[in-house]
Amino acid sequence: MSGEDAPAQQQKAEEQKQESKTAEQPTAESKQESQPAAEAKAAPAAAAAAAATEKAPEEEVFTYRSLVLSGHGGYDKVKLQVKKGKPAPKNGEVLVRVKACGLNFADLLGRQGLYDRLPSPPVTPGMECSGVIEALGEEVTDRKVGDKVLVLNRCGMWQEVVTVPASHTFLMPEGMSFEEGAALPVNYITAYMMLFDFGNLRPNQSVLVHMAAGGVGIAATQLCHTVKDVTVFGTASASKHEAISQGRVTHPIDYRTRDYVDEIRKISPKGLDIVLDPLGGSDTHKAFNLLKPMGKLITYGAANVLTGQRKNLLAVAKTWYNQFSINALSLMHANKSVCGYHLGYLDGEFELISQVMAKLLELYNQGKIKPRVDSTWHFEQVGDAMRRMQERNNIGKVILLPEPKKEEPKKEEEKTEEKKEEPKKEEEKKEEKKKEEPKKEEN
Amino acid sequence: MSGEDAPAQQQKAEEQKQESKTAEQPTAESKQESQPAAEAKAAPAAAAAAAATEKAPEEEVFTYRSLVLSGHGGYDKVKLQVKKGKPAPKNGEVLVRVKACGLNFADLLGRQGLYDRLPSPPVTPGMECSGVIEALGEEVTDRKVGDKVLVLNRCGMWQEVVTVPASHTFLMPEGMSFEEGAALPVNYITAYMMLFDFGNLRPNQSVLVHMAAGGVGIAATQLCHTVKDVTVFGTASASKHEAISQGRVTHPIDYRTRDYVDEIRKISPKGLDIVLDPLGGSDTHKAFNLLKPMGKLITYGAANVLTGQRKNLLAVAKTWYNQFSINALSLMHANKSVCGYHLGYLDGEFELISQVMAKLLELYNQGKIKPRVDSTWHFEQVGDAMRRMQERNNIGKVILLPEPKKEEPKKEEEKTEEKKEEPKKEEEKKEEKKKEEPKKEEN
Repeated sequence: MSGEDAPAQQQKAEEQKQESKTAEQPTAESKQESQPAAEAKAAPAAAAAAAATEKAPEEEVFTYRSLVLSGHGGYDKVKLQVKKGKPAPKNGEVLVRVKACGLNFADLLGRQGLYDRLPSPPVTPGMECSGVIEALGEEVTDRKVGDKVLVLNRCGMWQEVVTVPASHTFLMPEGMSFEEGAALPVNYITAYMMLFDFGNLRPNQSVLVHMAAGGVGIAATQLCHTVKDVTVFGTASASKHEAISQGRVTHPIDYRTRDYVDEIRKISPKGLDIVLDPLGGSDTHKAFNLLKPMGKLITYGAANVLTGQRKNLLAVAKTWYNQFSINALSLMHANKSVCGYHLGYLDGEFELISQVMAKLLELYNQGKIKPRVDSTWHFEQVGDAMRRMQERNNIGKVILLPEPKKEEPKKEEEKTEEKKEEPKKEEEKKEEKKKEEPKKEEN
Repeated sequence: MSGEDAPAQQQKAEEQKQESKTAEQPTAESKQESQPAAEAKAAPAAAAAAAATEKAPEEEVFTYRSLVLSGHGGYDKVKLQVKKGKPAPKNGEVLVRVKACGLNFADLLGRQGLYDRLPSPPVTPGMECSGVIEALGEEVTDRKVGDKVLVLNRCGMWQEVVTVPASHTFLMPEGMSFEEGAALPVNYITAYMMLFDFGNLRPNQSVLVHMAAGGVGIAATQLCHTVKDVTVFGTASASKHEAISQGRVTHPIDYRTRDYVDEIRKISPKGLDIVLDPLGGSDTHKAFNLLKPMGKLITYGAANVLTGQRKNLLAVAKTWYNQFSINALSLMHANKSVCGYHLGYLDGEFELISQVMAKLLELYNQGKIKPRVDSTWHFEQVGDAMRRMQERNNIGKVILLPEPKKEEPKKEEEKTEEKKEEPKKEEEKKEEKKKEEPKKEEN
């Protein structure tokens, strides 16, 4: 989560042989779309890369696969690259071999250039992953090589190995799969802090969860049921209602065919205690009006701006124009609370986040929460993975896997000379993969 | 608290002999200042009064003292009147003989015409009192004659007897004085709901309490200390610092000689978890900026508009102009919460309020909270009482007493013929009272 990680990732991006798998877009276009800031940064980065190259011959040639956002735009802007040189953990850092990564809405926004916490391209996206600690930097005392960990970071997690501050890692509970692990941090921390910090959720209350089949939606629904007699209203398209009902959404609402406000008012005329709002724009107004006295609106996204592969200026403008705004007097007369939440802007609050993670892992161990994985995709398939999420076809978390297969015990040794073959192998697997539907894990 | 009570009080106001004690202002001026709405209402009220007068000869002549706001303006607009005819509790109501009444900021704003929950004059103000139940309406099963109760109502409590819905009464705990009882409802419910509903106060957090020597300030400070290791920053003028320190304000700050934002930043550079804001205007902006990530601003007043006896249009305009306003995106980037609270607008939420009262009375019984009474004033002294609060000279609650002495066991029988003597008696007492300083009860 710290801002310093990003430039490090960028430097590494400069050192690699660029073997882009999805390089249909000419490099020129990437450069056009990348912001001037990126070019300004490129100069010192190149110098650093040059320095690194001098050292390279002394080092064992270590390579690792990494997804790199080459410029803002469509799915093809995220390219698979093979980077060279093993990252060395600095003071207080650990080196993690990544087993699975989570895909988040912020990554989709970042690709379009709509998420200002993602540094300018070229940059490796990815806020979360799970993996195994492979090396420790100095002064790391509470982690050891071989520890399975969840990782939360500002960006840069979509690669085979990452270096992160040890404080950004959390020990995985026994019995948690890497896919589950990668699905947990962002969605569950977000849902937990919204419901239990801002929302102050208590027994017998009612909550509206939009996109109830999404990662945060499923996390929020599960967390609601850690409190007695909470009623969950969940919006999702009709095809997902069976799944979200199984996930204990009390009242599934098909927002595509019904006016969700009318549907909620029919069931709960007085309104709701909490509305979680990932949509923004006019939906935030509806959320506010749906609140009971003492109700809490928690806005945590602007999914309404995301209407296609590339930045849709009309959608952005419309969401912006309809943006909810309120003054102190109106709030007082309404006895309501309006909260804004975005984990990406909680830099430097790792103590707070660690407390939340400790509670979440306890709930996981008690069997009260369990991430639902929608599908897993290899790095080469990142475009399809993003499409699945962006077109709202997922039920649960979309996961990216750095390696073609989970089991490749000899990879470390073989890697040096295998590099050029690898892409082909991946390509074949991608083909196989496409014939099957993406693996779905139901929980 | 229900809107229906107010017109009833107004009708009663029409039936009485108007023996105003502070009638220095000509009636004409009152009429000028009262709003057109009041005049519109007066017509049906007068008709109802006429109907009531026809019945009067059949009834025993019962009189009671009542404070009536005759028009918007200065302290002299609240006049002591003697009303005739014993109010009869309707279905679900009780008749309460009032022993003490609380004075609140909303009453001061109401007098100036700045509080829209107070019906237009003539009207009896007063949102809270303590007393003894004297009669029950039909269908009241959970109260009995002789019960000592706290009462919370939208208005109309500043008189010797009141009729209110039984649900607006709360049984007084053993050992609570009537003065304490009248000091509790508004201030403690307000502080409790702000801190524990919107604020979600937890151990080790920090809270800024403005006007820390006021009724809500003292209540909030006490309630903060029902949670482990909470740090309370309290603003008050230097002369009150000893008192608020005794009341466990951790860091008293003299806002008159220091910039309270600077003082707080020196002690807590990261900012605060909760700011309670009764001031409005530019202080709300300061409050928002003082918050840590995940911090909560709870705005519950606009004391900044109250700068003199009469409505100060410049202060109103300035407070309005500087009013805090925020949009969803800014909130999200800041990870903050903005809440508005006003008990006066929680009409119809008596179930919620009853739950809060139950918790407060439990805390009182455990010795964890204890209202601090600043001073008690007889009805005739209401102007002085209001001045004391408005000029911020009070430390704790300002209390009004309907009767000249607490103990007058035979009053009920003597009253019929005593009416004309009474005002004189009161006047003498007022004189005596003025020589002494108002009684101060330290807790």
